[in-house]
Amino acid sequence: MYSDRFSFLVQKLRLLPSVGSKSAQRMALHLLMRQRVGALELAQAITDAVEHIHECSVCHSLTELDVCEICLDTERDQQVLCVVESPADVFAIEHSGSFKGRYHVLHGHLSPLDGIGPEEVGIPHLLQRLSDGQIQEIILATNATVEGQATAHYLVEACRQLPVRISRIAQGVPQGGELEYVDSHTLHQALTHRLMLNQD
Amino acid sequence: MYSDRFSFLVQKLRLLPSVGSKSAQRMALHLLMRQRVGALELAQAITDAVEHIHECSVCHSLTELDVCEICLDTERDQQVLCVVESPADVFAIEHSGSFKGRYHVLHGHLSPLDGIGPEEVGIPHLLQRLSDGQIQEIILATNATVEGQATAHYLVEACRQLPVRISRIAQGVPQGGELEYVDSHTLHQALTHRLMLNQD
Repeated sequence: MYSDRFSFLVQKLRLLPSVGSKSAQRMALHLLMRQRVGALELAQAITDAVEHIHECSVCHSLTELDVCEICLDTERDQQVLCVVESPADVFAIEHSGSFKGRYHVLHGHLSPLDGIGPEEVGIPHLLQRLSDGQIQEIILATNATVEGQATAHYLVEACRQLPVRISRIAQGVPQGGELEYVDSHTLHQALTHRLMLNQD
Repeated sequence: MYSDRFSFLVQKLRLLPSVGSKSAQRMALHLLMRQRVGALELAQAITDAVEHIHECSVCHSLTELDVCEICLDTERDQQVLCVVESPADVFAIEHSGSFKGRYHVLHGHLSPLDGIGPEEVGIPHLLQRLSDGQIQEIILATNATVEGQATAHYLVEACRQLPVRISRIAQGVPQGGELEYVDSHTLHQALTHRLMLNQD
């Protein structure tokens, strides 16, 4: 029923995250029926992005340059390094405007069952970057998931011999969170790491 | 923060239906981090599809040929024409295997408030196709939405002078439907158009 090129397009649209066969078919029809010019622009945008955007050779975030703008920015604090799991996390933290140091982007998190160990995640490169002694503190900002916690834990061990402070982003009740709906692990963290308000 | 090409890719991914800025960013990162080869194949598939897939000159469904395979198939009943709103509906009906006539695909449904009238939807072309007298019955298979019903209603009036039978697909409780959860309009239709089981 489908023509070959239509089937091929549907199949390739399924490479996008969270796109199943029904959504892919809907996307294909939408592009062909209502967005033929836009579709060609999308194809060009994908090709351009793949050809020009690659990993920063220093922090492994995404950039069109050899070294990304954040790494090149001399105004930023050279002594604090924030370790995250993906470039999306860099975007999120930059968007919050609450960090002015530099980043190091891992390739996701440790997942031994999937054969993803320290090497695959890029931890040796991080340790090498720390070895020049310029960095005074590393902030472990891996996700607050089981895998992210395990990765943070591994990094604490791996950096134990280095003369750097190691911190972990705080866990607790998110902004707007109603205690009634917050899970018990989060409540436990929020109570354990409560802030004293009337003492230094 | 984003590079220009990254922003452009995110913007173009938003052309896809139901893709907002957050999803588009996630898709862009996924393509750049995990699917660089697949991304180029996707770009090629989009370009190929737009260059080779177009409307069938007879029924306005999508095809890579001048006239689509369904229109060319001499085994199919030439006397019954099923009128639908989009090529997706042709796919769905073909998938059900319950129709062996031919199709006519409108460009969506009538929507006077958006300036979409009979001309924009392609009704003159349908009437022209009916004028050669070969078609004996047209099945109105526009959606069971307010707009689809209005379009079907308009077509009944437009075809009143033609020597063709006009039918509308049945409305009622869908397979697996529990009466408790079926809306009252559907129940009304199901009761009004109930089938007699012990009479011819």
